[in-house]
Amino acid sequence: MINTIDLNSDLGESFGQWRMGEDEEILGVISSANIACGFHAGDPVGILQTLKLAQKNDVAIGAHVSYPDLVGFGRRKMEIANHELTADVIYQIGALQGLAAAAGSKVSYVKPHGALYNTIANDEYQGLAVIEGILAIDPNLALVGLAGSNILKLAQEKGLRTIAEAFADRAYTSQGELVSRREIGSVLHDADRVAQRMLQLVTEGGIASIDGKFTPIQADSICVHGDSPGALEMAKRIKAILQQAGITIRPFIHS
Amino acid sequence: MINTIDLNSDLGESFGQWRMGEDEEILGVISSANIACGFHAGDPVGILQTLKLAQKNDVAIGAHVSYPDLVGFGRRKMEIANHELTADVIYQIGALQGLAAAAGSKVSYVKPHGALYNTIANDEYQGLAVIEGILAIDPNLALVGLAGSNILKLAQEKGLRTIAEAFADRAYTSQGELVSRREIGSVLHDADRVAQRMLQLVTEGGIASIDGKFTPIQADSICVHGDSPGALEMAKRIKAILQQAGITIRPFIHS
Amino acid sequence: MINTIDLNSDLGESFGQWRMGEDEEILGVISSANIACGFHAGDPVGILQTLKLAQKNDVAIGAHVSYPDLVGFGRRKMEIANHELTADVIYQIGALQGLAAAAGSKVSYVKPHGALYNTIANDEYQGLAVIEGILAIDPNLALVGLAGSNILKLAQEKGLRTIAEAFADRAYTSQGELVSRREIGSVLHDADRVAQRMLQLVTEGGIASIDGKFTPIQADSICVHGDSPGALEMAKRIKAILQQAGITIRPFIHS
Amino acid sequence: MINTIDLNSDLGESFGQWRMGEDEEILGVISSANIACGFHAGDPVGILQTLKLAQKNDVAIGAHVSYPDLVGFGRRKMEIANHELTADVIYQIGALQGLAAAAGSKVSYVKPHGALYNTIANDEYQGLAVIEGILAIDPNLALVGLAGSNILKLAQEKGLRTIAEAFADRAYTSQGELVSRREIGSVLHDADRVAQRMLQLVTEGGIASIDGKFTPIQADSICVHGDSPGALEMAKRIKAILQQAGITIRPFIHS
Repeated sequence: MINTIDLNSDLGESFGQWRMGEDEEILGVISSANIACGFHAGDPVGILQTLKLAQKNDVAIGAHVSYPDLVGFGRRKMEIANHELTADVIYQIGALQGLAAAAGSKVSYVKPHGALYNTIANDEYQGLAVIEGILAIDPNLALVGLAGSNILKLAQEKGLRTIAEAFADRAYTSQGELVSRREIGSVLHDADRVAQRMLQLVTEGGIASIDGKFTPIQADSICVHGDSPGALEMAKRIKAILQQAGITIRPFIHS
Repeated sequence: MINTIDLNSDLGESFGQWRMGEDEEILGVISSANIACGFHAGDPVGILQTLKLAQKNDVAIGAHVSYPDLVGFGRRKMEIANHELTADVIYQIGALQGLAAAAGSKVSYVKPHGALYNTIANDEYQGLAVIEGILAIDPNLALVGLAGSNILKLAQEKGLRTIAEAFADRAYTSQGELVSRREIGSVLHDADRVAQRMLQLVTEGGIASIDGKFTPIQADSICVHGDSPGALEMAKRIKAILQQAGITIRPFIHS
Repeated sequence: MINTIDLNSDLGESFGQWRMGEDEEILGVISSANIACGFHAGDPVGILQTLKLAQKNDVAIGAHVSYPDLVGFGRRKMEIANHELTADVIYQIGALQGLAAAAGSKVSYVKPHGALYNTIANDEYQGLAVIEGILAIDPNLALVGLAGSNILKLAQEKGLRTIAEAFADRAYTSQGELVSRREIGSVLHDADRVAQRMLQLVTEGGIASIDGKFTPIQADSICVHGDSPGALEMAKRIKAILQQAGITIRPFIHS
Repeated sequence: MINTIDLNSDLGESFGQWRMGEDEEILGVISSANIACGFHAGDPVGILQTLKLAQKNDVAIGAHVSYPDLVGFGRRKMEIANHELTADVIYQIGALQGLAAAAGSKVSYVKPHGALYNTIANDEYQGLAVIEGILAIDPNLALVGLAGSNILKLAQEKGLRTIAEAFADRAYTSQGELVSRREIGSVLHDADRVAQRMLQLVTEGGIASIDGKFTPIQADSICVHGDSPGALEMAKRIKAILQQAGITIRPFIHS
């Protein structure tokens, strides 16, 4: 029986004078921090500051690598050549490793961001480019991907450890896929309901789909948000409900 | 008596579709490569390619860190806060370390580029920010600076190894300072004359100043260029003259 | 006797996913909007949106031109060559003119931003580069500069119309210069006091310096802020006090 | 019978210290210059310089608008929202108009670049976004597109003038489409053969396809290159052969 789970969230997404996210607050809730590397968000000063806060909170560090698209926040798919993507991934991980070293911590996993995350869930071409980048810089880094997606199998075949992730506030189809954001009911807003779903996910290995059927989802980590007061409250509620049920929140990756 | 010297040059300065420098050719001449880190030049794909070539040529790798100014090629002084500069330096070194790991090599020193190089020669404020960045990511990295400049003393006080560098094609004042590029005669173009000067530098510890006086210059490395056919020929000539005199060209830093 | 005054504020400073400023609210208060042009802030989508809002509010449009430094928000002085600065100014004004045309309005003045604003107040070299840029694209554009600064005289000599500006929330020395932000008391926070000072500025042509002496300041426009609830309240208070005293708020530049 | 034709080429593609293209030489050959606007290439100083040269050569000016992708040179397709693309197009055209005004000339048409050009040839979604951008800033600007592609019809329906373009050095299928660059024989290298094909294109309204069949191509302009000595020679050869046959080279758009 599973009695531990990882909670991860996206951090370090401020840029220059622009603030985004409540990094300090969410770090008190989560066990793993996906930290921007400068390609979709994050500048060196801000990333370093977030890394220092993460270190104080004993949270695992992941490189939140992205397409090079600051103005689009990495949310626009790019048809990028695989050798370009591989090198971009290495560059970003390296930069974060350097800043993590300066903060007294280290990077233990990689989570692709935004459009890259969605693309590689099923696009083997770009997926392999990301995997190759991780293997080239450090094969001990784990890859976080969407639970049930092809990228996880592909990464395992290539020798990477993988972390399957579920999204706390998203509805799933009865095939275990995310309901598109364009559809009504795709995003859940009730903190209590979300927390109960996540408890079920951890203890029963699945949740109710949007059609009401129990749907198995094998997840090692749950993605929560901390970029608004409401999101932060939801994350805290999830953690509280899980802990009350005797579940330990801890990084999937032990540094 | 000195019978070894290091030859260093700036590489990895292409960007996207834009080519700059004859990296492959100059790598056959030099012992240390200052490689752009993406802030004044260099994109991940191109940097990785240069690092692989450098690895084949058994050349030491340095991080050529810069102000964040791609369009200005890092040649415009910026009044940047010290915590910003420190984080920028760490980010760039980390990114290069990551790409170097992927290329099977490692970064062994740091050389600030362009306006940053010139500024920290005497500006203690920005100089300390660079030093702090290097110490934070890896205190074993050496710092390359202008022979005779304050930054070398400052870095040594803070515990860094330093490499004093002379410029092969530049005239010096009789105080051992570079003659400003704005002055006539500041840049030397005759390959043979330059090569003989560098031989004198290595064997006698000094060269003739622009006023004709022998001027002591304590240099551990000589900076040569490879960004034009003429520059490449000059670099080859310097190496040939030095080797004929029994001097070994090798990295100051032994990896 | 002066019975009109212009109120200006910085707008369009969001970038991509990052929000900054309450553009819609402040547009109801001011008569002139300094709109970011993409070099320190502002992306095309966001700038266009702000221009459409400004058009609805019948507010004059100014190009808030900057050094090319997004991560530094244009607040870091750069030693940029004058032909580079001139071309950068033209590019930014042109881009804003294009977006203004699409919004059904037009650009009527130029206000340099941040470090560029401060630098050209007294640096004739960069000041001339900015003036040359404005003259090259459209000599009918006016230049906004710090009341009492050299740039205004220089611009007038070169044939530009100028707008002298005072800062509502800043203390002045008895020489009519801004008290440095590093000094205590340099920034005023009491909305009522600020509003009364601005009324005095408009009606008496001066205000009390930080030393308590009446100090003449010849200002055609007052700069207010709208980037926080407090700033917005202060701007509204200034406008209310001025209007109660019979002063009309309107653009210095009539489009 | 057609006795005039336009020759266009891509210019202004240098960036900062990086040189690309022989702008001065190709300007002596062509009648229309597609000038980079800073999103895939071109910085303000370099664009302005090219515009001044174009003005001296009495060449028509087009805005070579692109996806925002400097490191990828605009050659990577992006899934960009239509309101983002529209605003990006306006921004780029406006910036070029500003610089053109400073150079004493004006922009008379728009040619999308690279991946954007290829995408909108058939993607109505992005195509409409580009058209909307042009209409918003100046409906008198013409749009250059691939001869035979849907974008031309779409633009005409929306009220834009269009310019159909053929590529001098590319092979065509017998359906009048470009042979993919991945296929053997897709790019032609023999200057004389290319020149004769272009003469046939102008005088007979078509050329031999890769399968050897005469294929009608309705083209108002021919795209030639100037970014290498060989390309420049080919462009000159085309012009010479056309002029010898009594055909006048002149801009499709009369400014």
